[in-house]
Amino acid sequence: MRPRRIAAMPIYLDNAATTPLRRDALDAMLPLLGDDFGNPSSVHGFGRRARGALDEARERLATGLNAQPREIIFTAGGTEAINLALKGAAWAGKARGGRLVTTAVEHHAVLYTLRHLEKFGFELVVVPVDRYGRVDPEQLDAAINDRTILVSLMLANNEVGTIQPLPEVIRRIRAHKGIVIHLDAVQAAPYMAIDTRELDVDMLSLAAHKFEGPKGIGALYVRHGTIMLPQVHGGSQERYRRAGTENVAGAVGMAVAYELTRTEQAVTAPRLAALRDRLRDAVLAVPNVELTGHPRKRLPGHLSVIVRDAEGEAVVQNLDLAGVAVSTGSACTTGSTEPSHVLTALGYPDEEARGSLRITLGRANTDHEIEQAGRIIPETILQTRTAALAIAADPLGEQVGA
Amino acid sequence: MRPRRIAAMPIYLDNAATTPLRRDALDAMLPLLGDDFGNPSSVHGFGRRARGALDEARERLATGLNAQPREIIFTAGGTEAINLALKGAAWAGKARGGRLVTTAVEHHAVLYTLRHLEKFGFELVVVPVDRYGRVDPEQLDAAINDRTILVSLMLANNEVGTIQPLPEVIRRIRAHKGIVIHLDAVQAAPYMAIDTRELDVDMLSLAAHKFEGPKGIGALYVRHGTIMLPQVHGGSQERYRRAGTENVAGAVGMAVAYELTRTEQAVTAPRLAALRDRLRDAVLAVPNVELTGHPRKRLPGHLSVIVRDAEGEAVVQNLDLAGVAVSTGSACTTGSTEPSHVLTALGYPDEEARGSLRITLGRANTDHEIEQAGRIIPETILQTRTAALAIAADPLGEQVGA
Repeated sequence: MRPRRIAAMPIYLDNAATTPLRRDALDAMLPLLGDDFGNPSSVHGFGRRARGALDEARERLATGLNAQPREIIFTAGGTEAINLALKGAAWAGKARGGRLVTTAVEHHAVLYTLRHLEKFGFELVVVPVDRYGRVDPEQLDAAINDRTILVSLMLANNEVGTIQPLPEVIRRIRAHKGIVIHLDAVQAAPYMAIDTRELDVDMLSLAAHKFEGPKGIGALYVRHGTIMLPQVHGGSQERYRRAGTENVAGAVGMAVAYELTRTEQAVTAPRLAALRDRLRDAVLAVPNVELTGHPRKRLPGHLSVIVRDAEGEAVVQNLDLAGVAVSTGSACTTGSTEPSHVLTALGYPDEEARGSLRITLGRANTDHEIEQAGRIIPETILQTRTAALAIAADPLGEQVGA
Repeated sequence: MRPRRIAAMPIYLDNAATTPLRRDALDAMLPLLGDDFGNPSSVHGFGRRARGALDEARERLATGLNAQPREIIFTAGGTEAINLALKGAAWAGKARGGRLVTTAVEHHAVLYTLRHLEKFGFELVVVPVDRYGRVDPEQLDAAINDRTILVSLMLANNEVGTIQPLPEVIRRIRAHKGIVIHLDAVQAAPYMAIDTRELDVDMLSLAAHKFEGPKGIGALYVRHGTIMLPQVHGGSQERYRRAGTENVAGAVGMAVAYELTRTEQAVTAPRLAALRDRLRDAVLAVPNVELTGHPRKRLPGHLSVIVRDAEGEAVVQNLDLAGVAVSTGSACTTGSTEPSHVLTALGYPDEEARGSLRITLGRANTDHEIEQAGRIIPETILQTRTAALAIAADPLGEQVGA
């Protein structure tokens, strides 16, 4: 059984995995991929033009984050930014203590980096979350002792879209002294204003390709005065904090994409929230489909559900055939047979977690696309269940066909 | 005094710092920066197209290096590749021993990474080189003991272009068992065939932007069976060896650029060597200008000299005004007031090292450009010296003007 393909062009609803590069960002990159190809470290005209473009990109990104240009380190992406933040702060703080604190729903870039640090004698405390994926400020507070040097949190979760109750959590961490706070803002940045001063964090990670910038570029904000050891050694680039010839075109693409994202957020976020609500209502109208993550405190374009009596993988594949691109969860764990650690942390048993579906909207999605998706997704869920039941009843597939 | 500007378009002779992105590479990248924007880890059509492009890039690059696709890890550049190789192999080998061996003329990405490892109890032995920058195979051999786990060498030097006597060096290292050999081929790759099997190395680092590929992408070859620990933690990308959403467009651009570079090398290398020889003769005709590096065993497009009685920085700046882009040495150490560690290792006193000039040709350079440069460079050296003498004689600059 194959659901019929309805849309001529597939509808892309996997914006949490990656987003299309927006035209304005590409246009800004092209000169750097052309005549302005210099190495920013070269003193001649070619180098100075590249340096100028890189400096401007850093300034524009810093402005969008309410930060200073020197507080921005360009990296190869969100994962490298997170690795640099956590390893850099942990090693720099080792003399003061060894406890690292985080939550159970962080991205693997955070969790596996912290697990790696455990091998070097750091102590890791992973704080649980509630049924919606939110950390309890009191519980997090209780995990902090006087040996704690670093707390890593995420602004919004990549799998279930839940937004953490940050102001209160951070206020409590700040009551202890000398703790570096890292915020993974990778998923939140496309939809929420990121003001580093207002958030009151010391480090903050971003990935350009989540907000219609290019892949292969990210940034780490490091509050001036925060001590951090570099993790990639070599040349003196990025003020000795990250060696390697700079990806100038990538930095420019990222800065332009973020500036536009930031400017448009006031319009984009409510529009996507309204579209998502329509889609949510259509999907939850299917029997035995349950929302995961917080019903209200969630990213505007983010819809995640558990479909009972169906494999998420099968629904995703059937939706692909029907012209709708969604996922079961994080793209970074594709190929893994393990159930999502996020859904496990939210208390879902393995069997239920296998029915997970993540549908994430982006700025480029149209009303018409969401209307179509609101018909195709419920229909495909029902068809996948019917097929699953048919296969269960007739495992040799004689009645079902190829 | 300003040398008059002769060329309408500046002549770019700093190809060791970076090269222009070639059009074929950009053309191959554009679809990935357009409709084929998917995350290679996504299972839907967008993801599968990106995965297909990434797989093809990996295969093409592997073919060009006489390697298997699974032996290629894409990184953010040469520096990250080198960091991954050295840290990955050192930590993986720690149980077997702690000695790391390298030479005095390596890039800072190698030297500073190995110095970093010293802090964790590894022992570093830096083997000296001769007046031309070549390591003595016997001396290198003598530095190896039974605790040695890693040797890092460069195929050709970035500052003086000298090619190492690799076959003999590697034969001697192989006589000891269980040593991982890393080769920094970043500077050599544009000009020399890189055959990983013939070179008989375990790891080899490349940076795309040195051979007319894009910035922000590099690769590490890791021979199948070589044990190496990942240095960036998170998702399962690159077979768990380097986490982070892949820079698909970058990988494609790199593969296309390398394939063309490799195909054209048989023509490009002798052509650039001949042009370089003409330019060398013109530059060395200036009194008190001395070639650095090996007179014959050097990269074909590479010319490096020491200009006595002049500051290299001043010559570079005057050449920039005259429309010729060159450098004093590595772009990665710009801004440093230290003399080049490479020239120091070759035995040049600080004062002489300050007169260094690096002129590096690339495929895009024309015969006409080299002819012009052969006039402009000697003229500018002489003018810079005259100005330096005038300033020395009249430090207030009253006779020299602005």
